Amino acid sequence: MDKLPINNAQLDTLVLEWMDEIRQFILKEIKNPLTIKTKSNARDLVTNLDRTVEQMYIAKIKQLNPAARILSEEGFGDEVNNLDGPVWIIDPIDGTMNFVKQHDEYASMLAYFYDGEAQGAWIMDVVKNEVVHGGPTQGVRLNKATMEEPTENKLDQSIISFSGTHLLYDHYQYQNIARMALGYRVYGSAGISFIRLLKGQCGGFTSVLKPWDFAAGLVLCRSLGLQVETLDGQPLDMLSSNVILASQKQVMADIKMLTNTSSNL
Amino acid sequence: MDKLPINNAQLDTLVLEWMDEIRQFILKEIKNPLTIKTKSNARDLVTNLDRTVEQMYIAKIKQLNPAARILSEEGFGDEVNNLDGPVWIIDPIDGTMNFVKQHDEYASMLAYFYDGEAQGAWIMDVVKNEVVHGGPTQGVRLNKATMEEPTENKLDQSIISFSGTHLLYDHYQYQNIARMALGYRVYGSAGISFIRLLKGQCGGFTSVLKPWDFAAGLVLCRSLGLQVETLDGQPLDMLSSNVILASQKQVMADIKMLTNTSSNL
Repeated sequence: MDKLPINNAQLDTLVLEWMDEIRQFILKEIKNPLTIKTKSNARDLVTNLDRTVEQMYIAKIKQLNPAARILSEEGFGDEVNNLDGPVWIIDPIDGTMNFVKQHDEYASMLAYFYDGEAQGAWIMDVVKNEVVHGGPTQGVRLNKATMEEPTENKLDQSIISFSGTHLLYDHYQYQNIARMALGYRVYGSAGISFIRLLKGQCGGFTSVLKPWDFAAGLVLCRSLGLQVETLDGQPLDMLSSNVILASQKQVMADIKMLTNTSSNL
Repeated sequence: MDKLPINNAQLDTLVLEWMDEIRQFILKEIKNPLTIKTKSNARDLVTNLDRTVEQMYIAKIKQLNPAARILSEEGFGDEVNNLDGPVWIIDPIDGTMNFVKQHDEYASMLAYFYDGEAQGAWIMDVVKNEVVHGGPTQGVRLNKATMEEPTENKLDQSIISFSGTHLLYDHYQYQNIARMALGYRVYGSAGISFIRLLKGQCGGFTSVLKPWDFAAGLVLCRSLGLQVETLDGQPLDMLSSNVILASQKQVMADIKMLTNTSSNL
């Protein structure tokens, strides 16, 4: 299958242009009334803008590389069962409840793989106009500034970001982890949580995530020296839902120790 | 006791100047290493900057009105046992864990009362450079823009902001409230939570708060048509700790119905 006609640095520049256009489109359109529908349950929201933005990304990707396959949240992409050749994973608007109710703290995310190898990833905090972008060979930047691996902390010196629902119902020992942390936060967006982790504002982030929720975060975290694993001992599957823990190394060790110890009781 | 030599509109202009100076001071000083100490427990942090900023506010207030009494978080104010005459309530830096670990999502808050009557209140999101300010006679503004009372929603259509600790340990039926809400968030700062409530981004905020944590929020919420009550049926005491619920009217009714019903089971 076709490689892209441009290298990863050129691709990064191009995708940043796409995202700037998408950002301006979202901020203009959000002033109009949104059409809001529910998906799997009353809290799983989708708007007309989620769908339109996904179609805009897909058109740009297919124009760049008609052979690319696209795994995307709102279903306008392809049926993707493997990572052979060029594959894009897209979340047009992540944190849709924040988007709908707050017009703040939502993200737009893209990740690009070739034959399963990460080539680049992008997470945009739309309102703050911040994009964290990069990959394994090119490092990670926040807009134009190079990011460094955050300073290591232990769990009890770290703020951990959680999925609200799974914390509330105490799945995966989340309440136990929260008690051992210095503090915890619930932001309502995986993209915003990954950005805070990458900046070192949080020491870890855990949630049950679909590929479009975690692909860009996984690529950027690993590129910056942070760890991404499953919390339930299942193999990490890039093409399905996972209990993702992304964190600094020491936080990962502390949480794994805590959850392994507790499950043996 | 002495009234101020200026009216509330002039006072508002003056305090906004103070806050702009404080903001620039904090953003400059935060680049230096902080001296961090713990207070009541390992998660109750105070820094040298909390203390310095409080002293800066107190010097400005005493210069304006030497008769003013000051109730403040870090203890440089006065012993205040009533609201007679001119009284200021100050939280120099609210959300100290966010301040220390994230350098983001912390607030600075002031409220001014005369003989128990609110005259003005100010909450500044330091990093975003946003100040919500106003009072019962002058309305509420976000920086220079007049704010309107947020559109009413029911609890199950609202995002509620909680104190992380009390939610985690399920005090005051918080987990029950969170389950009935559309969604919930934990931000780690009362000031940031009040701003989101005032903007309509959240439908309610509840936490156990000291006077300096809730005084400015209470004044601004009530001035904008939002409700502030206790959640545990105790009389609201401006001079001590309260289980505060600040919310839109319908959210207040829904939560009171829920917590009364549940406590009768």
